[in-house]
Amino acid sequence: MSKRIYNFNPGPAALPLSVLEEIQATFLDFAGTGMSITEVSHRSKPFDAIINDAVTRVKRLLGIGDDFKVLFVQGGASMQFAMVPMNLLPDGKSADYVNTGTWSTKAIKETKILGKTVNVAASSEDRNFAYIPKELSLDPNAAYVHITSNNTIKGTQWADFPDTKGVPIVSDMSSDILSRPLDMSKFGLIYAGAQKNIGPAGVCMVIVKNDLLEKANTGLPSMLAYKTYADSNSLYNTPPCFTIYAIDLVLKWLEETIGGLEKMDAVNREKAALLYDLFDASSFYNGTADADSRSLMNVTFRLPSEDLEKRFVEEATKNDLGGLKGHRSVGGCRASIYNAMSMEGIQALVDFMKEFERTNG
Amino acid sequence: MSKRIYNFNPGPAALPLSVLEEIQATFLDFAGTGMSITEVSHRSKPFDAIINDAVTRVKRLLGIGDDFKVLFVQGGASMQFAMVPMNLLPDGKSADYVNTGTWSTKAIKETKILGKTVNVAASSEDRNFAYIPKELSLDPNAAYVHITSNNTIKGTQWADFPDTKGVPIVSDMSSDILSRPLDMSKFGLIYAGAQKNIGPAGVCMVIVKNDLLEKANTGLPSMLAYKTYADSNSLYNTPPCFTIYAIDLVLKWLEETIGGLEKMDAVNREKAALLYDLFDASSFYNGTADADSRSLMNVTFRLPSEDLEKRFVEEATKNDLGGLKGHRSVGGCRASIYNAMSMEGIQALVDFMKEFERTNG
Ligand SMILES: Cc1ncc(COP(=O)(O)O)c(C=O)c1O
Ligand SMILES: Cc1ncc(COP(=O)(O)O)c(C=O)c1O
Ligand SMILES: [Mg+2]
Ligand SMILES: [Mg+2]
Ligand SMILES: [Mg+2]
Ligand SMILES: [Mg+2]
Repeated sequence: MSKRIYNFNPGPAALPLSVLEEIQATFLDFAGTGMSITEVSHRSKPFDAIINDAVTRVKRLLGIGDDFKVLFVQGGASMQFAMVPMNLLPDGKSADYVNTGTWSTKAIKETKILGKTVNVAASSEDRNFAYIPKELSLDPNAAYVHITSNNTIKGTQWADFPDTKGVPIVSDMSSDILSRPLDMSKFGLIYAGAQKNIGPAGVCMVIVKNDLLEKANTGLPSMLAYKTYADSNSLYNTPPCFTIYAIDLVLKWLEETIGGLEKMDAVNREKAALLYDLFDASSFYNGTADADSRSLMNVTFRLPSEDLEKRFVEEATKNDLGGLKGHRSVGGCRASIYNAMSMEGIQALVDFMKEFERTNG
Repeated sequence: MSKRIYNFNPGPAALPLSVLEEIQATFLDFAGTGMSITEVSHRSKPFDAIINDAVTRVKRLLGIGDDFKVLFVQGGASMQFAMVPMNLLPDGKSADYVNTGTWSTKAIKETKILGKTVNVAASSEDRNFAYIPKELSLDPNAAYVHITSNNTIKGTQWADFPDTKGVPIVSDMSSDILSRPLDMSKFGLIYAGAQKNIGPAGVCMVIVKNDLLEKANTGLPSMLAYKTYADSNSLYNTPPCFTIYAIDLVLKWLEETIGGLEKMDAVNREKAALLYDLFDASSFYNGTADADSRSLMNVTFRLPSEDLEKRFVEEATKNDLGGLKGHRSVGGCRASIYNAMSMEGIQALVDFMKEFERTNG
């Protein structure tokens, strides 16, 4: 038997055990090919079946049709900070960015490096990004409105998306992709590094509306143009086959074991509530995000002192509860509870937290 | 028992069985962490140990010191076609490119997309790239000389590298990286998509000399600047952890099981000779590359008719010899025999080829 911990890492993060077991079982001989999935050609029928299945599952989960393309792009979400404006922000136009934390700040920085014009439509920097801004000063002529739907480090999440009066929303959903249903009619493009909710690190999923693709900027290097990926089903060059295979298995788990995004959302709400209720009932644990901006994915909290926080993380680790340290830029504690974190994991954490408060409070 | 075939795919390609077995055995619990390697944080001690080990092994294998950086970059070799000139070709300078096939042609195309100046120093296009050019018209002021060391599709390889009078060579070594010793003093940068000689698809290894890094172009998006990777040990953002782990195991195999690049080279020469000797002794099988330009990695050949080639590939497949079809752009047959292809695999192929000639010749 392998030892398994409850893994609260922010990403790379826990994956469903059944997915890991299937990868392991088939690792030397994938689908009767006599090859590992790491050895199969990306120009083969077995791999075509995988990538097509993944695309179909994403579309079905999100309820989108042929007006969107689902792309697999390397370079992580960080590469998208540059690719989004390269492709979607034409010269002479500007884009609105809402600054809700570290990742939004980086998205803005990369856009400016390209010499493009950014309008910061709102920011919550005044209170260390502890909330999602309510008032946005949007430019009706903006090429797009960029939003970080879930702020992994600050522990905040957009509960609803704003009405942008027809300007397409571009959203970094790295830390909450496929964790809840979405009204996709509001979005022009969403992107997400795989390594939190949908698979191992090594690919970024980009879902883009055809009309944006059609008017995208031209003259880009092939690997930096969305069109290259859209025209080739992400097979212009060798894709990260193993990672896409693992993602396909996670998507299958999401559809067939969980039962889709409504069900996933309900479970995620229940999981997060167990922790937030504990904070609200205790003076020992305190959440860092405003109540109306709390993330269902990254639950950030503080203990009465940094010493206690250090001991908390250490003792949790000894109890096989891993990854609870807050991001180095903010300190404190953080429990990342993405789709694959089970209710049992949350329950184990809650039990540990109560015991730790009893003995240290 | 898993079924295993002899896999002659051009990439993704065969990996050493012992590497696959180790990944499989540790897949649910990596190094006692209680997590899969796909779930381990890239900011953790266990992952640091992996990436540092990989870098150290590459340097030891190639006999290079701290004057080079070993980087892991996403996007495959195709992304390097653009990143090389973005970083290393300053405005007002030009670069020399030797055109030896499909991949060189693409490298040239991407450089031109960027509006940069290319001098084609030589080309073997006149005879469908069946040879490596001997005469190069090099520009002493070029920023670099770009060479595709092994032409995966055309089956040709540079046996030696030219004297470029101090101008650094930049080489796409996707299909022969770490297959033989190199005199690294000639090179400013080498790059290789992992999926042929060193691991699964999903990362490109870039080995670059510090002096080129120091004078590299600035003002690039973070993910497109080599400096970003060099300054962060390839951990600026989330790297493809699983792929880097697999590469580290392949490097360990290369050092500890094979015994380094001299040994690997000797084995590779022996393997290729078995096939080329067969061609030379037979009028049924004929190599497509000039004798002095033959690749030790991708052995391209023709049979007397396309019908026979089709039957050859089909019957080979039935005999568990996979991936022998030539690239769709050239036809014919191709046996890709990278580092991980065993002598037993070559012997099985040679036996099959003799039998096929006997019954169809
Ligand atoms: C919201 C968000 N955006 C972007 C990133 C950067 O992702 P990557 O490491 O894939 O570039 C992260 C990583 O944690 C994130 O949480
Ligand atoms: C020599 C060479 N260069 C570049 C490439 C493209 O590599 P990638 O698919 O990693 O972009 C290949 C792929 O076969 C290749 O053989
Ligand atoms: Mg954040
Ligand atoms: Mg409280
Ligand atoms: Mg070629
Ligand atoms: Mg012959």
